[in-house]
Amino acid sequence: MEINIAACQIEVKPGHPDQNFEKIRSRVSEAKKNGDDIVIFPEMAVPGYIIGDEWENSAFINDCMSYNKRIAELSEGLVIVWGSVDADKQKVGEDGRIRKFNTAFTAQNGKIISRVCKTLHPDYREFDDDRHFYSSRKLAQDRGMSVRDYIQPLTVDINGEERKIGVSLCEDMWSDDYSIHPIEILLDNGAEFIINISCSPWTWRKNDKRHRVVRQRLQAQKAPFVYVNNTGVQNNGKNIFLFDGGTTIYNRDGSLRDMCREYRDDVIRTTLFSSRTDVIKRPVLSHERDQEELLSGLIYGLRKFFELIRASKAVIGMSGGVDSSLSSYLVSKALGAENVYGVNMPSEFNSDITKSLARRMAETLRLNYAIVPIQDVYEYSVEQLEQTEFTRLDASGVKKMLELSSVDKENIQSRDRGSRILAGIASALDAVFINNGNKSEVATGYTTLYGDVNGAVAPIADLYKTQVYDLCTYINSVEKKQIFPDELFDIPASAELSAEQDIEKGEGDPFAYEYHDKLLRAFIEWRLDPEDILKGYTDGSLSDTLGMDRNFLSEYFASDSLFVEDLERIWRLYKINYFKRIQAPPIIAVSKRAFGFDLRESQLGVYYTQNYKEMKRKLLGGD
Amino acid sequence: MEINIAACQIEVKPGHPDQNFEKIRSRVSEAKKNGDDIVIFPEMAVPGYIIGDEWENSAFINDCMSYNKRIAELSEGLVIVWGSVDADKQKVGEDGRIRKFNTAFTAQNGKIISRVCKTLHPDYREFDDDRHFYSSRKLAQDRGMSVRDYIQPLTVDINGEERKIGVSLCEDMWSDDYSIHPIEILLDNGAEFIINISCSPWTWRKNDKRHRVVRQRLQAQKAPFVYVNNTGVQNNGKNIFLFDGGTTIYNRDGSLRDMCREYRDDVIRTTLFSSRTDVIKRPVLSHERDQEELLSGLIYGLRKFFELIRASKAVIGMSGGVDSSLSSYLVSKALGAENVYGVNMPSEFNSDITKSLARRMAETLRLNYAIVPIQDVYEYSVEQLEQTEFTRLDASGVKKMLELSSVDKENIQSRDRGSRILAGIASALDAVFINNGNKSEVATGYTTLYGDVNGAVAPIADLYKTQVYDLCTYINSVEKKQIFPDELFDIPASAELSAEQDIEKGEGDPFAYEYHDKLLRAFIEWRLDPEDILKGYTDGSLSDTLGMDRNFLSEYFASDSLFVEDLERIWRLYKINYFKRIQAPPIIAVSKRAFGFDLRESQLGVYYTQNYKEMKRKLLGGD
Repeated sequence: MEINIAACQIEVKPGHPDQNFEKIRSRVSEAKKNGDDIVIFPEMAVPGYIIGDEWENSAFINDCMSYNKRIAELSEGLVIVWGSVDADKQKVGEDGRIRKFNTAFTAQNGKIISRVCKTLHPDYREFDDDRHFYSSRKLAQDRGMSVRDYIQPLTVDINGEERKIGVSLCEDMWSDDYSIHPIEILLDNGAEFIINISCSPWTWRKNDKRHRVVRQRLQAQKAPFVYVNNTGVQNNGKNIFLFDGGTTIYNRDGSLRDMCREYRDDVIRTTLFSSRTDVIKRPVLSHERDQEELLSGLIYGLRKFFELIRASKAVIGMSGGVDSSLSSYLVSKALGAENVYGVNMPSEFNSDITKSLARRMAETLRLNYAIVPIQDVYEYSVEQLEQTEFTRLDASGVKKMLELSSVDKENIQSRDRGSRILAGIASALDAVFINNGNKSEVATGYTTLYGDVNGAVAPIADLYKTQVYDLCTYINSVEKKQIFPDELFDIPASAELSAEQDIEKGEGDPFAYEYHDKLLRAFIEWRLDPEDILKGYTDGSLSDTLGMDRNFLSEYFASDSLFVEDLERIWRLYKINYFKRIQAPPIIAVSKRAFGFDLRESQLGVYYTQNYKEMKRKLLGGD
Repeated sequence: MEINIAACQIEVKPGHPDQNFEKIRSRVSEAKKNGDDIVIFPEMAVPGYIIGDEWENSAFINDCMSYNKRIAELSEGLVIVWGSVDADKQKVGEDGRIRKFNTAFTAQNGKIISRVCKTLHPDYREFDDDRHFYSSRKLAQDRGMSVRDYIQPLTVDINGEERKIGVSLCEDMWSDDYSIHPIEILLDNGAEFIINISCSPWTWRKNDKRHRVVRQRLQAQKAPFVYVNNTGVQNNGKNIFLFDGGTTIYNRDGSLRDMCREYRDDVIRTTLFSSRTDVIKRPVLSHERDQEELLSGLIYGLRKFFELIRASKAVIGMSGGVDSSLSSYLVSKALGAENVYGVNMPSEFNSDITKSLARRMAETLRLNYAIVPIQDVYEYSVEQLEQTEFTRLDASGVKKMLELSSVDKENIQSRDRGSRILAGIASALDAVFINNGNKSEVATGYTTLYGDVNGAVAPIADLYKTQVYDLCTYINSVEKKQIFPDELFDIPASAELSAEQDIEKGEGDPFAYEYHDKLLRAFIEWRLDPEDILKGYTDGSLSDTLGMDRNFLSEYFASDSLFVEDLERIWRLYKINYFKRIQAPPIIAVSKRAFGFDLRESQLGVYYTQNYKEMKRKLLGGD
């Protein structure tokens, strides 16, 4: 017989079960009016999912459990499936605290009738399920049962008929790398259809990958599949994750039946086991679609993050370069131009070109704008520091004057902008200020701590410099007017902190971004080592591996030894400059690996493997 | 028959297998000369343990595995047991990468004869074993075996006799909160003695706890127990963990036979199964012993951290307060006074008392010292900001002048010190500068981002303010001369950033540290919620729970409503100010829960449970 399903995509506010409960209550009451048989909510829809060690707060857990009970009480006349935390107060978890579960609850006739706990616990990137929750895998082991016997579909009476539902949570469907396949087990054990409730962040082309995974799960045994995910943002301090939703109902063969609109509360309804077979098209993958998703994700993420921290106004340094131009565009889209305060902070080293580009960008976006020069305090600081004399307070009385190098002076300017001006203005306006760094800079530490590393949020710090240009090009192509002027693409990327970085003479950053961005991606996202890179260089496969023009390397590097020197320079910069990332602001995560708690680092210094050293010796000779 | 054991406590350099291998090689060669039968090294002695996601670098893993082979080659004539990473390249881990194991290797006659992989994977605090490694628990499940059957002692021929050794790794012995007890299983399955190799950071009274745990493990079946741990520091970016070693050989009944000296390379040798039964005394626990351990740990941690980042000089702001006084003492002990540059940075708000206390401390410690006033730039900045006018670049042309509040002006001074002066001096001296914050400040955000939040390392940020005073008192009691003058204990703690914070009028920080420190500890370390606190306040148990004088609360809070107001103020400060901790420097972890990646947080805003609100309503009336 037919079953009427309502798949509810809701924004979950992590750490605020009261608000989440209210949203669930109102959706349940709509579902009742609509005559739905089963109404489904995402994983951890009550507490939120990425809440750090708040899971250790027992009062909070109890509070969530009391909301679970209140949700169950709403289930007169229909079945509710939702994700929340569950606890077994008689048992301890492996951290010695109350044993907790990441659970899919099912309620009917006012009572909780089933608690399915997650089997596969992701423990990579930002995921930490084993830190907080006990899996059904461990429960099976404790009872001396096989997982296959332990995982069973849930039997529910729907309209007088016994139905078997395969309830699963998020990772349970992404089982390719596991020795256990919960979806297949549920189907083998008699599930008529699958519900998967998730709290799954957006990543590049993940929706498309999910469609493929669902088809694969249903390969041996066909069955309808209902995937329910939340929207909103959740953060672990160092990263802000975007939840686009992507709630989807799949037909028996894994084809798409219906899908929620992204980044908003939405409900899709369907009648399972009816004779109708609706099929919607899978979105076609393209560079444009990727850019569109990226852009809407970044703007949504910024808006939601400001909501979260209860800020409405943003201050942003505008240098006239491409990074601050893109950032200010994103922020003005997220908050409205009236809430954005652009500041240009020239010193003697800033060119007329960039100063005028900054102003033009602020005009294009109709921002609030001010020019606050740093030259006076810069000069005063150089003088004050150069006149500072330390005296050893012992019998020797040794004296030491400070000497400032060119780099020391560059950093003084950056810190003056970040810590004196921007932080001062933000504080006076009761606003926060934006970090404009891109991923290439963050990776190589081509930034100044307490200078341009500062800010409350870093919207583009998960985009390499070349991706920044790409996104600007895309925005120009979809906006009615040209947002980013041609000059912005023509001037060299430069910090403009010294006479050596004079863009009017074509001098810019010490990077060939078209190569270095790809090298950095190989290090950061593909987790490759200099050994892998040097091997590729030696055997001629590197250009293909990185996706480079085959002539680039031989043209750019005049000799093997220059290639190796550059490789070691970049590896060293990436490794050593982690100390700056430790003190960097939250980054909106959009790549396969964002700096922060997604990619976990340690201050280790620089290391080269024995193989690397051997290959280098062979290539360059000597020892 | 007798077995000669050498338990080698070595400093492990995380991420530098080459250096670790050399150390192991030299210890093995000593053991051979000494005629030892078995030489034992700590867990993860080759790669290090806390290395972030460097575990995902396959070239690094291969490099470690090649060192494993080279260690095995050293095992002619004796048995070597050591910890390292192992990989099964035919299988994937649950992150889709090469499957890796946290393994205890045993080698004999030039070959690896056994690989025991860790059974219990800690996943709390800084530990993340499931993120990177596959446990023997999962291996057992995959093979359809019980863990009890899977975990077996290793059989080795020693001096012509078959011996059964129970090899285990770290958490395998700390099984109280697990459903599996590997040590007991090994003994049940015939192990004659236990080896536990660990990479276990120092925490408060942990050695004593370990002695108790070993006794408990041996309760049902007696057997000698060899515990080998490393020294050094390892970090996860946000926290620096201290490894004191504590390598111990236990007799069959769990009494102590011998123990390495702390924080240094050391070897203890013993003959197992001999008629001799040496017993050494367990160190007696006391407040003095705790302070001594804390002090030596902090100094060791600072010294090793500076070694790690290859820095030898430190700049430190000296306000004349107790925090900067203690920090400068620790740093001068760690690096030598000649490498420490103290800087006093007065503005109009700094009292003569604190200025002279700063100088006296620098004299006592014989530091390099300079006074660098911030008054001029402070005044300039206030004026420059107050004269800044934003213009809306649209048809409206709306203008907005900045207005600075008293708090805005306080923060300008702090940022000027942290970002203009200290960062400028550190950069000119090729030094790093020290963060002087204590845990009470870090917890409540009573700090200025880009001001006193700055620095390369925070030595005392895991000590509450009252603990800072305690440690100073202890240092005074053990040093030949008085380091911290009486006035330091007498003046009120104050930021001295405004006329309202005038210590000469007795005005200081808005905290009653003797209560608020304990409240914060309850939140941070005991993971309690305002609900728990309010419950204790209501039923009269709070003073006992916190360990307070019973009269304090009633004397300090004139009414219930003032108590609740204060409770909510502190909870709110703690929760909201996480944004500052995101950008804070590495903290040396010494408590049960340090801010950083030990305690994982999320920007969530403030939440009160239903129970809390109900209790508050009952207590105060109203709704």
